[in-house]
Amino acid sequence: MADKPWDGRFSEPTDKAVERFTSSIDIDKRLYQHDINGSIAHCRMLGKCGILTSDEADAIVEGLEKVGEEIEQGKLEFTDRLEDIHMHVEDRLSVHVGDLARKLHTGRSRNDQIALDTRLYLREETVKIINALLELRRVIVSFAEKHSDVILPGYTHMQRAQPVLLAHHFMAYYEMFARDTQRFREALERIDVMPLGAAALAGTTYPIDQAYAAELLGFSKISDNSMDAVSDRDFIMEFLSAASICMIHFSRISEELVIWSSSEFRFIEIADAFATGSSIMPQKKNPDIPELVRGKSGRVIGDLVSLFTLMKSLPLAYNRDMQEDKPPLMDAVETVKSCIDIYCRMLPHIRVNRNVMADAAQRGYLNATDLADYLVGRGMPFREAHGCAGRAVTYALGKNSELHELTLDELKSFSSLIENDIYLTLSSKALIDRRRSYGGTAYENVSSQIEKAKRQIAQEMER
Amino acid sequence: MADKPWDGRFSEPTDKAVERFTSSIDIDKRLYQHDINGSIAHCRMLGKCGILTSDEADAIVEGLEKVGEEIEQGKLEFTDRLEDIHMHVEDRLSVHVGDLARKLHTGRSRNDQIALDTRLYLREETVKIINALLELRRVIVSFAEKHSDVILPGYTHMQRAQPVLLAHHFMAYYEMFARDTQRFREALERIDVMPLGAAALAGTTYPIDQAYAAELLGFSKISDNSMDAVSDRDFIMEFLSAASICMIHFSRISEELVIWSSSEFRFIEIADAFATGSSIMPQKKNPDIPELVRGKSGRVIGDLVSLFTLMKSLPLAYNRDMQEDKPPLMDAVETVKSCIDIYCRMLPHIRVNRNVMADAAQRGYLNATDLADYLVGRGMPFREAHGCAGRAVTYALGKNSELHELTLDELKSFSSLIENDIYLTLSSKALIDRRRSYGGTAYENVSSQIEKAKRQIAQEMER
Amino acid sequence: MADKPWDGRFSEPTDKAVERFTSSIDIDKRLYQHDINGSIAHCRMLGKCGILTSDEADAIVEGLEKVGEEIEQGKLEFTDRLEDIHMHVEDRLSVHVGDLARKLHTGRSRNDQIALDTRLYLREETVKIINALLELRRVIVSFAEKHSDVILPGYTHMQRAQPVLLAHHFMAYYEMFARDTQRFREALERIDVMPLGAAALAGTTYPIDQAYAAELLGFSKISDNSMDAVSDRDFIMEFLSAASICMIHFSRISEELVIWSSSEFRFIEIADAFATGSSIMPQKKNPDIPELVRGKSGRVIGDLVSLFTLMKSLPLAYNRDMQEDKPPLMDAVETVKSCIDIYCRMLPHIRVNRNVMADAAQRGYLNATDLADYLVGRGMPFREAHGCAGRAVTYALGKNSELHELTLDELKSFSSLIENDIYLTLSSKALIDRRRSYGGTAYENVSSQIEKAKRQIAQEMER
Amino acid sequence: MADKPWDGRFSEPTDKAVERFTSSIDIDKRLYQHDINGSIAHCRMLGKCGILTSDEADAIVEGLEKVGEEIEQGKLEFTDRLEDIHMHVEDRLSVHVGDLARKLHTGRSRNDQIALDTRLYLREETVKIINALLELRRVIVSFAEKHSDVILPGYTHMQRAQPVLLAHHFMAYYEMFARDTQRFREALERIDVMPLGAAALAGTTYPIDQAYAAELLGFSKISDNSMDAVSDRDFIMEFLSAASICMIHFSRISEELVIWSSSEFRFIEIADAFATGSSIMPQKKNPDIPELVRGKSGRVIGDLVSLFTLMKSLPLAYNRDMQEDKPPLMDAVETVKSCIDIYCRMLPHIRVNRNVMADAAQRGYLNATDLADYLVGRGMPFREAHGCAGRAVTYALGKNSELHELTLDELKSFSSLIENDIYLTLSSKALIDRRRSYGGTAYENVSSQIEKAKRQIAQEMER
Repeated sequence: MADKPWDGRFSEPTDKAVERFTSSIDIDKRLYQHDINGSIAHCRMLGKCGILTSDEADAIVEGLEKVGEEIEQGKLEFTDRLEDIHMHVEDRLSVHVGDLARKLHTGRSRNDQIALDTRLYLREETVKIINALLELRRVIVSFAEKHSDVILPGYTHMQRAQPVLLAHHFMAYYEMFARDTQRFREALERIDVMPLGAAALAGTTYPIDQAYAAELLGFSKISDNSMDAVSDRDFIMEFLSAASICMIHFSRISEELVIWSSSEFRFIEIADAFATGSSIMPQKKNPDIPELVRGKSGRVIGDLVSLFTLMKSLPLAYNRDMQEDKPPLMDAVETVKSCIDIYCRMLPHIRVNRNVMADAAQRGYLNATDLADYLVGRGMPFREAHGCAGRAVTYALGKNSELHELTLDELKSFSSLIENDIYLTLSSKALIDRRRSYGGTAYENVSSQIEKAKRQIAQEMER
Repeated sequence: MADKPWDGRFSEPTDKAVERFTSSIDIDKRLYQHDINGSIAHCRMLGKCGILTSDEADAIVEGLEKVGEEIEQGKLEFTDRLEDIHMHVEDRLSVHVGDLARKLHTGRSRNDQIALDTRLYLREETVKIINALLELRRVIVSFAEKHSDVILPGYTHMQRAQPVLLAHHFMAYYEMFARDTQRFREALERIDVMPLGAAALAGTTYPIDQAYAAELLGFSKISDNSMDAVSDRDFIMEFLSAASICMIHFSRISEELVIWSSSEFRFIEIADAFATGSSIMPQKKNPDIPELVRGKSGRVIGDLVSLFTLMKSLPLAYNRDMQEDKPPLMDAVETVKSCIDIYCRMLPHIRVNRNVMADAAQRGYLNATDLADYLVGRGMPFREAHGCAGRAVTYALGKNSELHELTLDELKSFSSLIENDIYLTLSSKALIDRRRSYGGTAYENVSSQIEKAKRQIAQEMER
Repeated sequence: MADKPWDGRFSEPTDKAVERFTSSIDIDKRLYQHDINGSIAHCRMLGKCGILTSDEADAIVEGLEKVGEEIEQGKLEFTDRLEDIHMHVEDRLSVHVGDLARKLHTGRSRNDQIALDTRLYLREETVKIINALLELRRVIVSFAEKHSDVILPGYTHMQRAQPVLLAHHFMAYYEMFARDTQRFREALERIDVMPLGAAALAGTTYPIDQAYAAELLGFSKISDNSMDAVSDRDFIMEFLSAASICMIHFSRISEELVIWSSSEFRFIEIADAFATGSSIMPQKKNPDIPELVRGKSGRVIGDLVSLFTLMKSLPLAYNRDMQEDKPPLMDAVETVKSCIDIYCRMLPHIRVNRNVMADAAQRGYLNATDLADYLVGRGMPFREAHGCAGRAVTYALGKNSELHELTLDELKSFSSLIENDIYLTLSSKALIDRRRSYGGTAYENVSSQIEKAKRQIAQEMER
Repeated sequence: MADKPWDGRFSEPTDKAVERFTSSIDIDKRLYQHDINGSIAHCRMLGKCGILTSDEADAIVEGLEKVGEEIEQGKLEFTDRLEDIHMHVEDRLSVHVGDLARKLHTGRSRNDQIALDTRLYLREETVKIINALLELRRVIVSFAEKHSDVILPGYTHMQRAQPVLLAHHFMAYYEMFARDTQRFREALERIDVMPLGAAALAGTTYPIDQAYAAELLGFSKISDNSMDAVSDRDFIMEFLSAASICMIHFSRISEELVIWSSSEFRFIEIADAFATGSSIMPQKKNPDIPELVRGKSGRVIGDLVSLFTLMKSLPLAYNRDMQEDKPPLMDAVETVKSCIDIYCRMLPHIRVNRNVMADAAQRGYLNATDLADYLVGRGMPFREAHGCAGRAVTYALGKNSELHELTLDELKSFSSLIENDIYLTLSSKALIDRRRSYGGTAYENVSSQIEKAKRQIAQEMER
């Protein structure tokens, strides 16, 4: 089948440069299995409805399966002349079943076909990403549990603020990735809609049975409007939005791992097998993985912007511009999957320098808030107590001491309300254990959050 | 209260230019009611827990209500010196209740307070947007119903493809805005989470009762992790993603209305009251509203990109960068609301030129597919029928006729399978009525989609 | 050379998944020729400075040339184990020259090497793009000249406004692409800076001669600051900005060609060889090329956003994130080049329906402004004349006539200042020929702009 | 003048909601002075050409000046009814000069008028930004000079790499801001083009003298094509691109200042007057300014994306969408100016902890490269020397020593080529002073770069 599918109306052959420019086969060949699966379902449905005889249907299905194997085995050569994956499959099908191949396209158009392929592809990939995120959350919970008694400074403005549990810190990322999972799940509902039957844009005149095709392909819903079915790319924009937010989370945790790997922080060390060195500086061990992941956040956000720009101002229904939806989509899918995967592998290989963290949490007046709270507990108004603690900090700074290193007399000089029990109050452990508000960093709270997370993961895995 | 809340530790006063640069009052003053409501709930909760006496709590609540009225009445002057809305409210409160004002901040920080205010604000606005979208969908359905028998060409590649019902075309937008509603609803679940109790980042040592505060403020959920509570801006990114997708839909419908208003299309006319003229060209009537709405899509997408860039690589927990989250958020909220509102007003004032549309649907060989299908129905393989119809089009083009204007002999010259019943087959109405696949443009299908939409709207309005 | 370049300090081998994740060879292998050219120049310079003996230098250069040929001929297998193009080249070089290969890296680092390769690549591509834009401008001028007497309506708000020459309309795009050329030229100045000698970040201790290397590689400037040299990616952001603006221009002209190809406009027809058909609708001829080009604008803008997000908040000097600069850069380079090329090919194959355009320019009251101006010329204040012409339009609309179809009596009813010469005033040609302000659409003006453009192109080609 | 400028053709009054939605006065009122200046020049030109009498011209100019003063003094009330700044000015003018006001608009349209106003505004602001950047560069150079002997670790991958001079590090930012200046200068050339005379889109029929108007307004160039003149927004996109790149630089330096302010780095302290505290944690001193500046980078990049999305696919010539160009433009202008200003103020108030920096540069094996180079200098091939130094680092790590703390015997165990002079080689100062390649960090190099920068600034200030 050497001719274009539209040759009848045209008097000139397509220019070679145009074939090259308009061809999408380099990209959409990755969809071959989805294209073939979609065609098999379409064909079976045509058979069931009597639009094809059951012999015809069987022959085509068998032919399509052969084509699938051939592509799998790398036996099919791709060419710009055949423009896209649909034409390649049909062309090859005609080698196996002859002119019968031409009947497969009955009752559909490439407009609903490409929407179908993309949705099948993205449904599969979204499920993979959801599962990968579940695994990542499991890895984070396990990391948190393993380090359940490690204390480090919590930061605001990159300044030491109050001591927190490392487990608490990591569980904040658990929350983020749990929200990501939820967003991908919700996006999945809107991905999981079958466009088949919309044909070019207005529906088809053939007495097809979309419910049957949907059942074969495992779709929960059929598109309610044929023009929407072929022109809608919301499901891609929404997926890319969820992916972008997820990558923002990766950029944040990566930033922290990079900073924590510095000589100045020395909070963690990433195992040799997960770091790389320098071609010129022998002493270097670089946190390349978090750096690369952080950089890849730009890629996915760029992909989202591509889609928005692409779709902006497109009239109904299908426009050829939409062919450009797949490169950014596929790039984002691969990027997100690879980042989740590498984090799942790397996190267990992070060595935590618990003493460095604990020391850091002891220095820098992280107990100043609690000195103020102590005074409030003894009846001083909050803002006044805050000022009083501030002055104590200034004094201690001048002596290069910490608050808990001042004598009781020194402390009393800031307020006579201070008594000897102040020293118990000011230790990191005490500071942490007192923060028992829901969601707070107290040991018990964090460990019950970890238990809750484990139940959540178990439940979600059963879905 | 002339001093900064942190004066104790500082030896130099803040530079005036720094006050100006770091002040957010210009923006966050819009949150004053949410800030006061949040403080009232916090205060009542402190009273319930015995952290404040009930007299203290009552006095503060009364004072806060007074401050609210004063701001409402424009009696409060805003100044960069007091930095943000929180300090303005507390400062003014101290005029009413004296030093007691200083106790309000017990057990919280500006970090959880601003997260609370923003969530209260966005929850309210998201609900408004959901309701506005419901109204827009109602207006679209009503427009579709009013024009239930209007036929126009459906386009692909801006080329006339197949005739469709105008109602069908508009119902495609109904689908888009219905998905938008759904996305905003799902975003709302993640907006509706109370951060209060996280304090600066690690939780608070006071025996607070977050469930009670959540109940007073109507929150369904309390944040599970205090560090996440103060550093999470997912709910903004997600809202802006939903808003951006919604604006893409507006850009598409606007593009169509602009093109349809051209002299070449003349499909519609926008009422004088909803159009504007030219200062120099007396004949002009411009579709300014769709043009402006189309342009505003850029604004919201820009707002989303702002947030992504802002959040990229921020370590935990709170960082001052986050202050910059509100200008893009508020800009997007206002833009989306105004676009929905103006469309609800304008759509009923669009006059449809049904004859122009119907004529257009008759010219341009929109029945060529059906000629092919007719031949398939008589046993010709699809691809062959497609080529045959293509040749008929080329022939008709040469004569400057339409297919249905050719004689039976002329038609037969392309295939002897063609009989006299072909003319019935080729009318716009017949073309439409034959497209009965689910979601197709057939009269009955479209009218049952309209009924379904009305039921959906009614159900959603009851929520 | 099976080992990593940093093996000394590491006790564990790199994890395979890490090798895969961190490898950039899939992307940077495209830079092989630039990498080899850079290494040859570096090596010759080392030889000149006595850091290598001249025999050593000759042997390495010869070896590098062999490696270049081997890659050219597809004889080198790429592997994630060797991470990037630099290691592949050096590894292969050691096959030809043994341990001597290890001396090539003296006085440089992969940090300045990759900056060098990227600049060599982008310099070459930017020059190609500048030349391609020159060709495109030539094609536009030639199109304008060929259609120098074709009149069409000029539009504002997609409403017919005033008649203009098609040549004038296209020369507006000439202006845009001329500005693009200029922007790429200016970007080129900042691309054309040699980073070699910066080594890892601080410069090198070897007595190298950067001026000599720059001369060999044709650079006009050497980087003034070694830390900037390895961490600067401005030249990429700037290139992508210029590319994005250029693609906006393509999206605009493409939008017009798509609209003009519609049945409603019928202003142009794109030759069969440059259009494609539909797999289902035999009558369709789709303007795929402008559609695809319009869609590709999203791609390049997405690439720019990727880079901005990537670079945001990166501390000095080199960070591994930067490896992610190349996929968006290369994507944009290829996209821009292919769009320019296909437009150069397609434009001459656009058939202009001059009569359709001319008719359109006669209908829709495009002469209303000139009726107003006529009245101003007879002493009426402008705003009053505008109102008067507006009323005449309303009257003519009611009669379904044009202004020039009204009788003199009818016209006089709007102002007694109107005389018989009004009819000469109101023809399209007269309207056009009267717009003689500089840059206006009058015949003579447009033709002198065409001449000016031809001189400009000739001059720029000589550079 | 209560009527709309286009009332003649319209039979219905504009809906109030439409007036509100389409009004731009809230934004473009900021352009009042540019609008009036543009009108004065236009009016003088009309007078010179005899289109207005000289008495008329004088009266209008005087009237316009009065309107300018009235707005300056806040005497004019702005109203959505009068839509934009042009109508407000003309309406007010008619109070002063009566019907004569209606003649001012002769030979122009709001399309070229708003292009003119925007260009006048942006030209002025771009010049301000260029001058502000010059000042910032001066401040950076002065900071570098003041700290000319301060040594700190240079980082790659946030790992200590090699010691560099703090002056060298800051001069890297000098280079970035110098490139920014250059980009704004080049953008300025394309901003500085007068669109007046293009009228609505096709030029004007009046015998105007654009060269005279350009001279009065100080424009270097007049637009060559009237359609381009009214539809071009390249100059805004280009300005925003330059602004975005500039903000990326600010995000990078801000990131460093934030990290350097942490307790772990303690490299710098920002003066109290340029920092803020915490409402809850008394010990905190937060680097708010760099944080906010870093966050504001998102804003400007978002503004750029807004413009790209806005302009994508807009046909020629003017479209109402373009009204949305001003909010992002003005937001970016104000943001960039405020960031430059606050950095100029803050930088001199940064206290450098030189000892902390120097100590850091001594620890972490920053001299490992030089140990390798030392071995190369004694004849060992580079890659082998790199491995040898790597093993020495591993050994020293095990002993918790630095390389320069090992005994000669220990060192010799890695290579017998090592002699006693190694200790001189390994000091920070020696490391720095040996990096004399052009652009390297050696003392002399940096100080000559500082001198070069001072000459550059002086020259640029004279322009």
